Amino acid sequence: MAIVLGPNQYGKAQNHLVRVYRGTSRHEIRDLTVSSALRGDFSAAHIDGDQQDVLPTDTQKNTVFSFAKEKGVGAIEDFALTLADHFVAQTPAADGARIEIDEMPWQRIDVDGRDHDHSFVQGGLGTRTTVVNVDGRGPDRTAHVVSGIKDLTLLKSTGSEFRGFLKDRYTTLEETDDRILATSLVARWRYEGTDVGWDETFESIRSLLLEQFAEIHSRALQQTLYGMGHAVLEKHPEVAEIKFSAPNKHHFLVDLSPFGVDNPGEVFYAADRPYGLIEASVVRDDASERGSAWHAVPAWV
Amino acid sequence: MAIVLGPNQYGKAQNHLVRVYRGTSRHEIRDLTVSSALRGDFSAAHIDGDQQDVLPTDTQKNTVFSFAKEKGVGAIEDFALTLADHFVAQTPAADGARIEIDEMPWQRIDVDGRDHDHSFVQGGLGTRTTVVNVDGRGPDRTAHVVSGIKDLTLLKSTGSEFRGFLKDRYTTLEETDDRILATSLVARWRYEGTDVGWDETFESIRSLLLEQFAEIHSRALQQTLYGMGHAVLEKHPEVAEIKFSAPNKHHFLVDLSPFGVDNPGEVFYAADRPYGLIEASVVRDDASERGSAWHAVPAWV
Amino acid sequence: MAIVLGPNQYGKAQNHLVRVYRGTSRHEIRDLTVSSALRGDFSAAHIDGDQQDVLPTDTQKNTVFSFAKEKGVGAIEDFALTLADHFVAQTPAADGARIEIDEMPWQRIDVDGRDHDHSFVQGGLGTRTTVVNVDGRGPDRTAHVVSGIKDLTLLKSTGSEFRGFLKDRYTTLEETDDRILATSLVARWRYEGTDVGWDETFESIRSLLLEQFAEIHSRALQQTLYGMGHAVLEKHPEVAEIKFSAPNKHHFLVDLSPFGVDNPGEVFYAADRPYGLIEASVVRDDASERGSAWHAVPAWV
Amino acid sequence: MAIVLGPNQYGKAQNHLVRVYRGTSRHEIRDLTVSSALRGDFSAAHIDGDQQDVLPTDTQKNTVFSFAKEKGVGAIEDFALTLADHFVAQTPAADGARIEIDEMPWQRIDVDGRDHDHSFVQGGLGTRTTVVNVDGRGPDRTAHVVSGIKDLTLLKSTGSEFRGFLKDRYTTLEETDDRILATSLVARWRYEGTDVGWDETFESIRSLLLEQFAEIHSRALQQTLYGMGHAVLEKHPEVAEIKFSAPNKHHFLVDLSPFGVDNPGEVFYAADRPYGLIEASVVRDDASERGSAWHAVPAWV
Repeated sequence: MAIVLGPNQYGKAQNHLVRVYRGTSRHEIRDLTVSSALRGDFSAAHIDGDQQDVLPTDTQKNTVFSFAKEKGVGAIEDFALTLADHFVAQTPAADGARIEIDEMPWQRIDVDGRDHDHSFVQGGLGTRTTVVNVDGRGPDRTAHVVSGIKDLTLLKSTGSEFRGFLKDRYTTLEETDDRILATSLVARWRYEGTDVGWDETFESIRSLLLEQFAEIHSRALQQTLYGMGHAVLEKHPEVAEIKFSAPNKHHFLVDLSPFGVDNPGEVFYAADRPYGLIEASVVRDDASERGSAWHAVPAWV
Repeated sequence: MAIVLGPNQYGKAQNHLVRVYRGTSRHEIRDLTVSSALRGDFSAAHIDGDQQDVLPTDTQKNTVFSFAKEKGVGAIEDFALTLADHFVAQTPAADGARIEIDEMPWQRIDVDGRDHDHSFVQGGLGTRTTVVNVDGRGPDRTAHVVSGIKDLTLLKSTGSEFRGFLKDRYTTLEETDDRILATSLVARWRYEGTDVGWDETFESIRSLLLEQFAEIHSRALQQTLYGMGHAVLEKHPEVAEIKFSAPNKHHFLVDLSPFGVDNPGEVFYAADRPYGLIEASVVRDDASERGSAWHAVPAWV
Repeated sequence: MAIVLGPNQYGKAQNHLVRVYRGTSRHEIRDLTVSSALRGDFSAAHIDGDQQDVLPTDTQKNTVFSFAKEKGVGAIEDFALTLADHFVAQTPAADGARIEIDEMPWQRIDVDGRDHDHSFVQGGLGTRTTVVNVDGRGPDRTAHVVSGIKDLTLLKSTGSEFRGFLKDRYTTLEETDDRILATSLVARWRYEGTDVGWDETFESIRSLLLEQFAEIHSRALQQTLYGMGHAVLEKHPEVAEIKFSAPNKHHFLVDLSPFGVDNPGEVFYAADRPYGLIEASVVRDDASERGSAWHAVPAWV
Repeated sequence: MAIVLGPNQYGKAQNHLVRVYRGTSRHEIRDLTVSSALRGDFSAAHIDGDQQDVLPTDTQKNTVFSFAKEKGVGAIEDFALTLADHFVAQTPAADGARIEIDEMPWQRIDVDGRDHDHSFVQGGLGTRTTVVNVDGRGPDRTAHVVSGIKDLTLLKSTGSEFRGFLKDRYTTLEETDDRILATSLVARWRYEGTDVGWDETFESIRSLLLEQFAEIHSRALQQTLYGMGHAVLEKHPEVAEIKFSAPNKHHFLVDLSPFGVDNPGEVFYAADRPYGLIEASVVRDDASERGSAWHAVPAWV
């Protein structure tokens, strides 16, 4: 028996990059947080402290900023793929690279009914995100793209029930056929291949998720999530699978009867902790192998 | 000389209240975080541990939730005034009460071009807030309302300079006539009186702040804030004064020259700390006395 | 009537400075977060955008770091006074300066019973803080020091009651003669003068606060705070007043009776929000005038 | 091809439980945050909205609190194992359960040199944590325990170099043979089996990690982590593998030369973002299969 180095990865996390496109007086801005990481045979660095195989995280940071100018940003998926391939190419000891990008939404400020050319206010529905994993280089290279949305806080004031559940001696929860359903959604979906219209697909999936959340009469958050995921896979053949992490943000009906006040589903206390946490995935049974697609993705499945 | 009790205040902070209006199938929701506090002569509680003058913070919480049903929520300023007066009335030892309310913005979910009746997504431009202070009761009662907006993150990609500043031996900053200007704005304004159309005025002030930020060619964040405040006071005679707390969220132009890459105002590194912090107020010289208006308001001036 | 500039202040917030003293192989480290601000007549900057009176926040930052070497850090109160006086001296338009410093606690790592010379682990009881305000310069100069401690989380598992309180129709809280009392304390005290042994006094006051919290049989958090403050003023004539901001971190006894389980004060649910918030001050009736001592201090009174 | 339910899991996250042991006047307290989750064939709940297989998250919460009294807390690993087995037993559709527990450290308050009986102050070196996964029940049951420590912030003011690294056209970092090395460590280790002295082993591993961090002359954070992990596996045969997630918290030497001030490794700016992120594992080459041990553990490898 021996003690050996196991899996490892290193990189620069959370490069907060703002890119201004100022070709005309009507500027465009992009607000990205980029994290890079390399994996592979870095035994010398770990065991002997020999850095000759290690492309410093500082260099990775420099590259992220310089590529934003040299290559432009484009769809975050494309930017991530470009960075990942570059880092693998630059680092002979690397087997693969992982790039994660979050994009903050901004809107133009409205001035007298017109969008301003160079003034913006932060806001939008959720944060767009992607995680790209590239393995190898040249003819052996494979690439995986997992995109998603987070910070999408949703609430239904009716159309949600929860009953007929399993009971044991510790069950005190009462059944309900009308409750508030609320969550702060994280959804991540794996694409088949990289020949995808990233921006349009993202918009379409976000709309679908919102619509399905609104339209599904919920018998449980699990069922709502499954319905949302099913709709996405049905409409988007380029999506192999989708995963959700959805806190059940409890809204407790306040008992006002001690004060002689009736409360028929109108006044709620929104609790922070504990919360239900529902994690679910919907997949195609003929999807390709996952490979490294979900490598180090902050989602459980 | 003696050691005595000084100013004091107690209450229940951050009651997270969600109110559903479900008179018809088209629901309305309101998402409020309400904090209450009472001040006055509570010596017995502090010195002797005698609670007979103390309306418990738990009772304050119950009242907040029950009033949401009994009185309805309405404009947050009216809800706060109602609560403040009630708590002063209920608590003989109280000289005054302070109510702070934040309101989270929600939108209806769009389904095929139609707003959904009971499904919502969180989002909007900034968080609306109010702080109400009431002193006394009956004929001696006075009330102050300070409303505001926070979490309003703004950015201009041009139209901002900073030069001609004071220099000493520690000055290394270079002058610039074109930089990114960005802030996460907190603005709070004091109303003269309480006969105000709260909702319309809030909307109008928010629009003015956004427009002025967009339109003012900035020679410094101070000047931008002053211009924003001036515009608000000019248009709104019901506003006595306005205060701003505005971090200067630095966006540093990345030096790409080591890589042979030019960077004419296109690629920036958005820094977290340290940040400039600009706090400014704009006032009418004939405004009424502030009194307790800014009591315990989280702003410095 | 006219619209005019009101109170204002500007500076650099949260310079995170780590200072290593390496005169011998046994290093000392200091971990400070320093915020500076200048106030005075900065009308030209606000109204005309003219920066000639403005010492840039970037220069303030540079000065903080350079002074850490030139002057050394010493007690945070002395470092803050030195910086405040310097900034007022450098900036003719300034009436005053405010310096706030937080100090993170670090310990040496124990290796086989010996403290390591240059390896440290973060930890300690609370974060030490100071806010210094200086007004004027030369013979008219006055200085105020408000020091304190924060992030001091305390809990008593017994020795705390709450009963005999005022009741109204919204009161449902039951009286108790044995509950958990817990808080995350912020205490800030104003010194008379600046001829103080800062470090010893801080240590002494922290010990007193801890001991009094432990020893006082609590009839309410108000009474505990008053007792803590009284003890500090009694022992420390150099302290003019002390203020507390203390969330009542509720620990609710869990009702296990539905499961046939008795729970005599043993199993609690620790809630996040809402929380009671008790703010109190203890003062000498012959204390000096406050002046600007509490200017922009994040405490309410 | 069909669209089907993929992996899924549901439970109650972040039950904040405080347990008081008050058998004598000298109380003991335990402060735990417990998250539970069940996985298995919950198709009916997801696809049909039929909850008959679903033990509600509310019931899971009740069980956590009741077991804290019925079974006692003990070592967090034992408490987690007890809960996991119980939930699998109660829920026929479940294949497995996952319990995660964090324990906040508390100390007795010192009063005149004596530890107080029932008054405590929060503090300690790091937060202890465990993740337990149980699969199956009865004779087929297997259990995995991954314990760890987080929030352990470490710094060396010397004894750290970084040089000899790979360079490309984006490399500007200068080599150094003396820098500050700082991290906020997360370490998680997998035990072989469950017949372990949990508390003593945790204390021993924490001490080892601290000592190794202090003693290793670092040629890179990777090498330090490997050394720390190697020492743990060498001393603790009951540990199969250990994983680290370690941000490289950059401390940049401030250039004071523009002010004519020398800065030989004394004044540093501590940056927040971006940061290096080093993730590494050290394993035995004859360790048992991982199975579900790392299921949904917030670490990447």
